Amino acid sequence: MSSPFDPTREHAISRWQPVSSERVADCRVFRVDRAQFRHPGRQVTADFYVIDSSDWVNVVAVTTAGEIVLVNQYRFGAREFSWEVPGGLIDGAEDPIAAGRRELLEETGFGGGEARLLGSIWPNPAVQNNRCHLVLIENVTRMAELAWDEHEEIESLCLPADEVIARARAGEIRHTLTLTALFLFEPFRRKAGSAPAV
Amino acid sequence: MSSPFDPTREHAISRWQPVSSERVADCRVFRVDRAQFRHPGRQVTADFYVIDSSDWVNVVAVTTAGEIVLVNQYRFGAREFSWEVPGGLIDGAEDPIAAGRRELLEETGFGGGEARLLGSIWPNPAVQNNRCHLVLIENVTRMAELAWDEHEEIESLCLPADEVIARARAGEIRHTLTLTALFLFEPFRRKAGSAPAV
Repeated sequence: MSSPFDPTREHAISRWQPVSSERVADCRVFRVDRAQFRHPGRQVTADFYVIDSSDWVNVVAVTTAGEIVLVNQYRFGAREFSWEVPGGLIDGAEDPIAAGRRELLEETGFGGGEARLLGSIWPNPAVQNNRCHLVLIENVTRMAELAWDEHEEIESLCLPADEVIARARAGEIRHTLTLTALFLFEPFRRKAGSAPAV
Repeated sequence: MSSPFDPTREHAISRWQPVSSERVADCRVFRVDRAQFRHPGRQVTADFYVIDSSDWVNVVAVTTAGEIVLVNQYRFGAREFSWEVPGGLIDGAEDPIAAGRRELLEETGFGGGEARLLGSIWPNPAVQNNRCHLVLIENVTRMAELAWDEHEEIESLCLPADEVIARARAGEIRHTLTLTALFLFEPFRRKAGSAPAV
């Protein structure tokens, strides 16, 4: 029997077919399309709004002292300050790991170390067409002065990995992509005085 | 010294002030606004696009056998099938736990058990103004026939909690809100033959 997690298996549910798409709004960092899909069995069509966005990257950067680098920004959607791991938009065909290193350096001045991809997930598959790549970079060090984007003001802080995870579970970190990054990072975190718990 | 996680403390970064907002698009399940904010120090204004949405709820439902209830749907943004925990939009002033119970019952037929709020997080605080409430319901049982919304076709599956977490970390579950729900659920999961590991 094929795995229920195999997307190519025969499904009891239907894979709708995209028919056409019309741009509704261009909002700089994203665009809104009205897309028509056809149901393969019932031969009906329906319109759904889709947010078109480039892929994103988020970075769990761990210093040589075992601390995670966090950033705090004012967020215009939530109208609140938010502690998060560094991240941003991937430029065109930029490699996710290169993009993660670039965002980390721009936002915090940290660099170096060994990078790997933790996973590639969907920020909102119901409505958005993009993915977010989650990157782990171990043994980063402070390498450069900060280079914020226009309208960016970013505070940064390094805290022990276990404290970051505890604060996240206690509700002090609320950005879902950071929480997902910590979920995927958790098996890799180094216990004090022991080998990596992979 | 106040905690860096206290949003009311004095910040090195600035809390922008919302000035005005104009509706750009109405897309049924969300709306797009162009919002003007003023920087309190520099006295400049800037426009940012904000997606207005009602709050969402996602539910980690654990059966009396210790299995998590998952649903699989075709997702029009990602154009793929996606295994997730049940969830949806909160209706107006509906209580998050009541909304979670309603969505769980509609999508899977499961109900009953003991519910608690795991946390309330931001799906996308940079651009969206809504929160997602993550609810844990323990000891659910199958109670009703399915009642799908229009255009919904939902497959469901119960798997042991540890298997769900392992599959999520292996990349077989990719929806960030489900991954965040599992992150917040993890300390509550019951080990076989032991007390809850809270």
